[in-house]
Amino acid sequence: MAEERAGDYRILHEAALRDYLAGILGLAATLGSEPASWSITEVGDGNLNLVFIVKGASGGVAVKQALPYVRLVGESWPLPLSRAHYEYLALSKQAELASGLVPALLHHNEALALTVMELLEPHIIMRKGLVAGTQYPRFASDITTFMAGTLFLTSDLALSAAEKKKAIAAFAGNHALCKITEDLIFTDPYRIAEQNRWTAPYLDALAASLRDDMDLHVAVSRLKLKFMASPEALIHGDLHTGSIMVTESQTRVIDPEFAFYGPMGFDVGAVLANLLMAYFASSGHERSPGERHAFEGWVLETVETVWNEFARKFLDLWRAGATGDAYPAALFAGEKGAARLEAERHAYMQRLFADTVGFAAAKTIRRIFGLAHNIDFELIEDPRRRAACEARAVRLARAMMVEAGAFPAIADVTGAARRLRDWQPEFATG
Amino acid sequence: MAEERAGDYRILHEAALRDYLAGILGLAATLGSEPASWSITEVGDGNLNLVFIVKGASGGVAVKQALPYVRLVGESWPLPLSRAHYEYLALSKQAELASGLVPALLHHNEALALTVMELLEPHIIMRKGLVAGTQYPRFASDITTFMAGTLFLTSDLALSAAEKKKAIAAFAGNHALCKITEDLIFTDPYRIAEQNRWTAPYLDALAASLRDDMDLHVAVSRLKLKFMASPEALIHGDLHTGSIMVTESQTRVIDPEFAFYGPMGFDVGAVLANLLMAYFASSGHERSPGERHAFEGWVLETVETVWNEFARKFLDLWRAGATGDAYPAALFAGEKGAARLEAERHAYMQRLFADTVGFAAAKTIRRIFGLAHNIDFELIEDPRRRAACEARAVRLARAMMVEAGAFPAIADVTGAARRLRDWQPEFATG
Repeated sequence: MAEERAGDYRILHEAALRDYLAGILGLAATLGSEPASWSITEVGDGNLNLVFIVKGASGGVAVKQALPYVRLVGESWPLPLSRAHYEYLALSKQAELASGLVPALLHHNEALALTVMELLEPHIIMRKGLVAGTQYPRFASDITTFMAGTLFLTSDLALSAAEKKKAIAAFAGNHALCKITEDLIFTDPYRIAEQNRWTAPYLDALAASLRDDMDLHVAVSRLKLKFMASPEALIHGDLHTGSIMVTESQTRVIDPEFAFYGPMGFDVGAVLANLLMAYFASSGHERSPGERHAFEGWVLETVETVWNEFARKFLDLWRAGATGDAYPAALFAGEKGAARLEAERHAYMQRLFADTVGFAAAKTIRRIFGLAHNIDFELIEDPRRRAACEARAVRLARAMMVEAGAFPAIADVTGAARRLRDWQPEFATG
Repeated sequence: MAEERAGDYRILHEAALRDYLAGILGLAATLGSEPASWSITEVGDGNLNLVFIVKGASGGVAVKQALPYVRLVGESWPLPLSRAHYEYLALSKQAELASGLVPALLHHNEALALTVMELLEPHIIMRKGLVAGTQYPRFASDITTFMAGTLFLTSDLALSAAEKKKAIAAFAGNHALCKITEDLIFTDPYRIAEQNRWTAPYLDALAASLRDDMDLHVAVSRLKLKFMASPEALIHGDLHTGSIMVTESQTRVIDPEFAFYGPMGFDVGAVLANLLMAYFASSGHERSPGERHAFEGWVLETVETVWNEFARKFLDLWRAGATGDAYPAALFAGEKGAARLEAERHAYMQRLFADTVGFAAAKTIRRIFGLAHNIDFELIEDPRRRAACEARAVRLARAMMVEAGAFPAIADVTGAARRLRDWQPEFATG
């Protein structure tokens, strides 16, 4: 586990950062030779860290420094700096396993909890593009390559049990970040918690009904237990569309500071949930009825493609490179063995799909009733209209979490989403 | 993870051991003041280590030293000395969580991979007693106290997620011992492996049929994956009746060197499997028909009591001390919440029971077709008679692993065992 050396840590604001970066070998070549001429802009819009864009005559870099507390909340909520170390570990591993789909690492200083990375330009945060109704034709292909590679290749299907245990232990110290997920996603939205908020008064009754819904509480508690005690693979841990930067031809996954060995469905579910939220938010952004019809069709198609392509690539990796200790080849020799193993691979994906559906639902509900909301919904100005979009997403999410049997395939999820597109929830208030 | 300091390690045979023990503060008081008069006898009949009984005028101790290889096989199969460290960690934890049910720890030297413990006298290895047809009236109560305490209190139901991750990491280095289980229990019996053996020629056809049984291979591979990737609790990892010392009034669990964070059902299944093997072996030991009828009834009753009492004690601990992060109390408030949580507790035990049944089956099959056999069967001299006993155990085990739905409750397991008691398998040979 990474030990923090708090004594060496200091927050680097502009001037100190300039001096620090000037001392890093090779960086002047990237940026241009005059440190005094570099522009340094703090752009962090995330919840936790400082992020600077540094530009010189020849190019730019991004600098991320962890703060010893949650930025969104302040110093009253301390958070270990070691998360920068785990982010660096995860980013290095992802660069190895999903080459070209994460920003290039240029420098890391564990004591300062600081990482210098390739500047992604002209990429934007995918969520912003989705709010604007932009389609990303490369996205499904890239994100499924990323997920299949990082998840399969760190699982028991690819690693020996000894390598896997070592890797689990290497990330075990990142528990404070896991705890955020455990509380904010799997617990708080289902109870009275100070940090919760929702589109009041329209969703007041729905919020109360979730707090009283014991089937939902059991389902989310099972998901929480799975999150805590199923180290299936090295997961990104926060793979929403705010952690993905895109152009129409490129996709980059950023910010893996929540990374640890957890259930694969948590990552896949995060992607699906955030696409589904973009879908349900879309009608709230249209200026005339049907304006975003093509976009919405693309989003649902992408939901299907993400699952289907992920499963296909994961299975291809399994068929080609089962170097792990699970499902030993010697037990599935011959034609009969090969056929039975292939059937089991599909059964495995079916179990993973069920997890994915559940986690996607949990990721949706937390964005509507918990602490951290997203701009998909937040930028819908009319609260009543926003609440209607959110209520549709929650209605689907509740069914996905509790009626698992009703969603045997991804088309069942998109079909239900499509049917809810124009459902008008009744609000007791207003 | 424990680093080995191989430079400090040496095997302590009698003279060196006497000198070493003489230097341990307090030990002379336990044994009697004259080291030269201590008797030192090597008694290790296990597969891995040296075990000495040291006795003086005032009392005795047991000394266990790990060898850098598997004793049963020899220097060609190296095995890390660090296992003694993990055994010590586990024993300390078990002493805390199941007080009085493990031998008292007197001294541990990590570099020498050596532990000095309370001498258990007049306890015998339970398996020997079962072969002789002895009933142990305290056993079910003690072993269920041991399992409920050690498993519940190291699970997500009792620990915070942070404590749990730390504990998992502390045992992650014991992977070489896990690998023995992964290979010898979950893989080798189902393939052609040099170390396999069975009661030939009678069981040749059955051995071949297991190697060709793809339903079984899928089932055992799922169990293997669960063993590798489900760190539910600190398990003993080798909880057969050879790791339990008993008198009619006392029970002590020894030898937790396979301990790590794994699936709880592996421990519970080990106990049930070894009782079931004692049951099936019993008819091979009777000198006249029905001679061991009462013993056999006690064994099956004990199988039922072990599961039922384990479940009852585990549930009691859960109801009284759910201090962990799983199933947060805030989500199950009020009368309705309490009722729903209670139902979920039973559902949880039902899932654990299904795991237990599967692991019990795997533990049975490995003792009949794998490397390490047990004296329950081995001491039946007539190989045909032995093979008949073994075939009955395997028939039940195969059903338990593949037809999980046929064993919803422990009475279904004992009922099936009872029906197989007098089944006469047909052997193609002889």
